[in-house]
Amino acid sequence: MQDKTFLMIPGPTPVPESVLLAMAKHPIGHRSNDFSDILKEVYADLKWVFQTKNEVFIYAASGTGAMEAALSNLVNQGDKVLCLIIGNFGARWSKVAQSRGAVVEKLEVEMGEVIDPVILQGVLSKDVKKEIKIVTLTHSETSTGAKNDIKTLCKIIKNHGAISVVDGVTSVGCMDVKTDEWGIDVLVSGSQKGFMIPPGLAFLTASKRAWAIHEKCLYPSFYFDWTAHKKAVLEDTTPWTPAVNLIFALQAALKMMKEEGLENIYSRHKKLALGLRKACRALNLELFVKNDENASYAITSIYPPKNISVPDIRKVFKNDFDIVVANGQNQLKDKIFRMGTLGFVSERDLITAVGSLEAVLLKLGHKFEVGAGIKAVLETLC
Amino acid sequence: MQDKTFLMIPGPTPVPESVLLAMAKHPIGHRSNDFSDILKEVYADLKWVFQTKNEVFIYAASGTGAMEAALSNLVNQGDKVLCLIIGNFGARWSKVAQSRGAVVEKLEVEMGEVIDPVILQGVLSKDVKKEIKIVTLTHSETSTGAKNDIKTLCKIIKNHGAISVVDGVTSVGCMDVKTDEWGIDVLVSGSQKGFMIPPGLAFLTASKRAWAIHEKCLYPSFYFDWTAHKKAVLEDTTPWTPAVNLIFALQAALKMMKEEGLENIYSRHKKLALGLRKACRALNLELFVKNDENASYAITSIYPPKNISVPDIRKVFKNDFDIVVANGQNQLKDKIFRMGTLGFVSERDLITAVGSLEAVLLKLGHKFEVGAGIKAVLETLC
Repeated sequence: MQDKTFLMIPGPTPVPESVLLAMAKHPIGHRSNDFSDILKEVYADLKWVFQTKNEVFIYAASGTGAMEAALSNLVNQGDKVLCLIIGNFGARWSKVAQSRGAVVEKLEVEMGEVIDPVILQGVLSKDVKKEIKIVTLTHSETSTGAKNDIKTLCKIIKNHGAISVVDGVTSVGCMDVKTDEWGIDVLVSGSQKGFMIPPGLAFLTASKRAWAIHEKCLYPSFYFDWTAHKKAVLEDTTPWTPAVNLIFALQAALKMMKEEGLENIYSRHKKLALGLRKACRALNLELFVKNDENASYAITSIYPPKNISVPDIRKVFKNDFDIVVANGQNQLKDKIFRMGTLGFVSERDLITAVGSLEAVLLKLGHKFEVGAGIKAVLETLC
Repeated sequence: MQDKTFLMIPGPTPVPESVLLAMAKHPIGHRSNDFSDILKEVYADLKWVFQTKNEVFIYAASGTGAMEAALSNLVNQGDKVLCLIIGNFGARWSKVAQSRGAVVEKLEVEMGEVIDPVILQGVLSKDVKKEIKIVTLTHSETSTGAKNDIKTLCKIIKNHGAISVVDGVTSVGCMDVKTDEWGIDVLVSGSQKGFMIPPGLAFLTASKRAWAIHEKCLYPSFYFDWTAHKKAVLEDTTPWTPAVNLIFALQAALKMMKEEGLENIYSRHKKLALGLRKACRALNLELFVKNDENASYAITSIYPPKNISVPDIRKVFKNDFDIVVANGQNQLKDKIFRMGTLGFVSERDLITAVGSLEAVLLKLGHKFEVGAGIKAVLETLC
């Protein structure tokens, strides 16, 4: 049976029908009062999701665009940027920084691990001249499924006098991110993740401390310019043509998120991810991120059983159950597979996913107690 | 009666139902073979529309993003860029160039006018040291409704040894643009125009001469990087997450464009725009661009009759006929109104628009021979 695809990748994530239908409406003029009314509501709801009193900008761009939108408004040539790298998306920050002429220092750990606050403290304490102006980090590292303790890390960065620039692409709308309370300076995210809409929108918010650095940026990007965007947000508009239909979709998705409530959204994701991890262990599968404490609630990386290949697992998932799970990226390709529990994913979906995972493993000859995965899920859910 | 809006603005333009429905499908994984198949087809069709053998890149961005994608891959600090300015979008090139640290020289004409090739020749001949590396220009200037003779202008630019960077946002898919044959070096466009889909995608193609400049660009944008995009296009993919659903829409729209054929698309737009201009004259309305030769086929700027305001015209159009026409921009606000005939606009739509225009003018007390506008339209169409 075809046309019943269930995406369990870290993005795009499943999109609710009401959101798809909102998106399918005929576009309206983006300079009309009707569209300003929509933007006013959407901007307010985004502040709520981002847990900030500062403006949240909407870019017609994908998550990588939001990363450029962050650093291209901050970095001057020769500025020192410390990049905390726990996977491919952490490494991407360093490439964006280099593209702006930054001098990049890296604090890198093995994939699957997270940044130890004590080690960060040690690195920063060696920066006695306070040359490090910006520190980039990743909340939920999509390539590994690990999550950093950004609350603690951002506090250390702030105490050092640098600003924190956080990739929240697969964390905002999934895991708690208290932007203002935790003193996060720049936070970016993307639409095709916790926001439950297709890709094409990116979001960014910046603190007063970040604005002070922005004001000294000699050549901020024209397209991503914070100053132009802030002016527009305050007037319920956008500086350039927005992706009108994706904003229709965003409006509908944010309404759903408000109905569910942030705490419920976070606890749902936590329950789904930890339930999946428990199920994997019950099925004799090894998890890439060992410790639940360090695990992202958006995406779970799993080693295949010995003698069973990742492509085979993905193929049977797709062909027999129309479920799409992700391969590992780059050096982790064919070493792990990744299952997303991000966005529009319900408890029922977890039952579906783990039941299908059992079936896939059974078909491929893996040895485990059949039903143990579902039992672990039900123990988590019920 | 509500919910029957007809957009006659220069973008977003009307979207066909088949395109809206294609866009409303559930997203699929952007690294899947199914999505690569779509991209392969779309990339090939874009080359056809752009009339080039070179790759055409798709950005998740709006038209201004494509402008940044052009200059952020070419300009080093201190480079001399000549900007040919016939309106707001021509002026935008100069701002993007400045945001990259370029030294900008401007050749600017009154709004409503176009660049005289002889004058351009004169300006360039003074550049005896050949310091001008890049010349930016606009094909169809959306703020005024004027069109430059880019064939002649790009030839002059090429002969001087500079590269031409052309804004084709409201011209590609509407008016003939022979990229390779005319020696255009960089051409950008956007989705919500001749391509008949909602905003959120931008397109760019670059010549070999432009690539030679790109290779010397010290800090190209990471997000818009040509090198990363070219590599991805050759592998039927995108370097970063694409706006999946907008690409579904693009695939459907390009199919429609292929069925109609480029020559038919161009002649339809020409007929509609010249028919509208003829109708305006028959209704004693003054056109902002005097000469049909210099008129864009995408958008027509019209002075309101004396004693009738632009806001009143727009209000009656919207309230009584659910037709959205554009105001003038910036210094032309309330001085002109603009009617788009761009994209998914048929001969029937022109009859609708001009009939409604007559009704609006009649209600607001303008003196003209009732029916003269429709007569002019029918003489053009039949």
